[in-house]
Amino acid sequence: MACVVFRFAVYQLKRFVLDGQCEGSIGSIYTEEMMIEKIQVELGDRSYPIEIGQELLPSLGEVCTRCGPPGRALLVSDSNVGPLYADTAVDSLERAGMDVASVILPAGEATKCEGRLFELYDHAIEHGMSRYSFVVALGGGVVGDIAGYMAASYLRGIPFVQVPTSLLAMVDSSVGGKTGINLPQGKNLIGAFHQPRAVLADLDVLETLPPREWRAGLAEVVKYGMIWDADFFAFLEANREGLLRCDKEIAARIVRRSCEIKAKVVRYDERESGLRAILNFGHTLGHAIENAAGYGEYLHGEAVAIGMDYAARLSARRAGLDTDVVERLHRLLTDLGLPTTADGLEWTDLYAIMLRDKKSVRGKPLFVLTPSLGRATPCYLCEEALCKEVWDG
Amino acid sequence: MACVVFRFAVYQLKRFVLDGQCEGSIGSIYTEEMMIEKIQVELGDRSYPIEIGQELLPSLGEVCTRCGPPGRALLVSDSNVGPLYADTAVDSLERAGMDVASVILPAGEATKCEGRLFELYDHAIEHGMSRYSFVVALGGGVVGDIAGYMAASYLRGIPFVQVPTSLLAMVDSSVGGKTGINLPQGKNLIGAFHQPRAVLADLDVLETLPPREWRAGLAEVVKYGMIWDADFFAFLEANREGLLRCDKEIAARIVRRSCEIKAKVVRYDERESGLRAILNFGHTLGHAIENAAGYGEYLHGEAVAIGMDYAARLSARRAGLDTDVVERLHRLLTDLGLPTTADGLEWTDLYAIMLRDKKSVRGKPLFVLTPSLGRATPCYLCEEALCKEVWDG
Repeated sequence: MACVVFRFAVYQLKRFVLDGQCEGSIGSIYTEEMMIEKIQVELGDRSYPIEIGQELLPSLGEVCTRCGPPGRALLVSDSNVGPLYADTAVDSLERAGMDVASVILPAGEATKCEGRLFELYDHAIEHGMSRYSFVVALGGGVVGDIAGYMAASYLRGIPFVQVPTSLLAMVDSSVGGKTGINLPQGKNLIGAFHQPRAVLADLDVLETLPPREWRAGLAEVVKYGMIWDADFFAFLEANREGLLRCDKEIAARIVRRSCEIKAKVVRYDERESGLRAILNFGHTLGHAIENAAGYGEYLHGEAVAIGMDYAARLSARRAGLDTDVVERLHRLLTDLGLPTTADGLEWTDLYAIMLRDKKSVRGKPLFVLTPSLGRATPCYLCEEALCKEVWDG
Repeated sequence: MACVVFRFAVYQLKRFVLDGQCEGSIGSIYTEEMMIEKIQVELGDRSYPIEIGQELLPSLGEVCTRCGPPGRALLVSDSNVGPLYADTAVDSLERAGMDVASVILPAGEATKCEGRLFELYDHAIEHGMSRYSFVVALGGGVVGDIAGYMAASYLRGIPFVQVPTSLLAMVDSSVGGKTGINLPQGKNLIGAFHQPRAVLADLDVLETLPPREWRAGLAEVVKYGMIWDADFFAFLEANREGLLRCDKEIAARIVRRSCEIKAKVVRYDERESGLRAILNFGHTLGHAIENAAGYGEYLHGEAVAIGMDYAARLSARRAGLDTDVVERLHRLLTDLGLPTTADGLEWTDLYAIMLRDKKSVRGKPLFVLTPSLGRATPCYLCEEALCKEVWDG
């Protein structure tokens, strides 16, 4: 921890001096909201830190060399994020003594495909990457998933570091080691559990995140409140306005708490054989909505918002959830500018897609229900009639 | 173990009666060489048994249902093995209550490619396979590698069972969880460590193995003697003739001892971060020979035989191996009909390929040396001059 704090101090000092804001001693800049938060994902010899803070990107190279000796690295980013941050990332890696090649993929879900994956392998071979080389995923969930899967499968697995640049990636997809690509038949049908060596969540990059993506990320944040932490849910309710205007202090708090919860769940169930399934609250229907509407129509977080609203109503019918909580969730999602209905989609289509989901077993979709605020449980529901009734409202 | 012995007794009884050879009581058929051997690969919650014996294939379904409830299964085989044994395998799986689809791939190394892999995914989706479904690999190393990798990556990993049908697959590739496919740039560049739920080595299927493939498999058996067990090496020397005529009793013994050694090595180093590298004795040059000569020209075991002969001579120069052992190895390989030289291949080509190997680090190929018979150690040698001198003889 010492070196982290030291590094932080140097950056903060530099920034304060440059900005002409340095009014106190170095000590005074250690206010709680400015510190680098470090959350450890405890997974034995696959444990790794999530670092959350400001001005972290320039320390990427240092983070990598802490995980292993400097060597070759492949930086993977996309056409939205690359032009903004790839130079800073490459510069940091090179300063740490790494030999870097970069690949900028087209932004969007369509990139998570076979063709792009095999392009990444080609780049890695061309760059002479060995099993000690690093893959750095600089981007949102799409980049993290495909670059992570490439790292999982190239030479039977090489190290990688996640640098999430969207709220959704920071609070969800970058943590926990799920990687993968899509097939024409469905999302994430091919993949691996491959834990990163480190996750670097630089809150500064959220400044350039489009507002719609920010709101979509908030859906996953609300999810953690619903499934795990009633106080956190209340905090979100009390800070709707701060959330909507991307307040940095609030951003730090929600990223930290979300990562803490996810790290805990993953620790107890790395490969999703039990507990981890609760992270899919709202996702059973959410995935089906994304699929039925055509990928890209709804952002993932938007579809999850609709799915959560639905799952809460289902929980009221099947798991005793207080209708007051159903209402509170509905209001919070709406206030955060998130959708709660998907107009124009047919229930029969959605149900058929849910049955094909990889979590469904023997013709029953797996829903996650919340018996009370802050508590969740996976449940195979068989009564399609009830599911439809709740959908119809 | 009780149920295994019981099943064995039933099969043996049936066979003895059918063949009119039943001369004794049931007790008398429990001679050591006829028993089902069971070797456990100890890997915590990824532990699994290797069953070695005769008439095992008809119990495949039972082995699968011992690993999990019966559901859907995808049987993957090739055009050599499928026509001989796929029916028996499918029949056994169906009798155990499984819903089976089969894929017969073209025999040969060229099958371990991107296109065939994605065909397998398509078959799995079409067959409605969930994360609880089984992949069964019925074949040699190629089938085991691609079917195993498909199982490793489909839905982030589903169970699979190895049914090796070549000696090489029985003593090497089916045990230890290495799976993968080739890229045009090289062999096994994409892959995963994914342990099977069980390995079923039915010695009866060796009867249909072409003699050249049998001899190639013996190269890996000799390797275990060289790197781990001097007594086993002496046993092989003393039984050259039995080995050449595929004596069943000797086959059972060499498969068992090879699997025991491999299981021990894998137990201590599942993901090849140390000890496991010794299994590559003879493989550094062997892989380069396969590549330089064009895949298919030399069988894997033949190339490994040449590589072992070379590695022993290198060991005499750099690790103090007694030249008498170099001679004994050379004689044994020759007596078993295995090559020890690769005419027409250029050293510069081979060395360049070795440097590109995924085990090489910073421009140095990784050789495994044997300081004495039964002992091995990985070693990064830098003197290309010495390597070339030993090659030139």
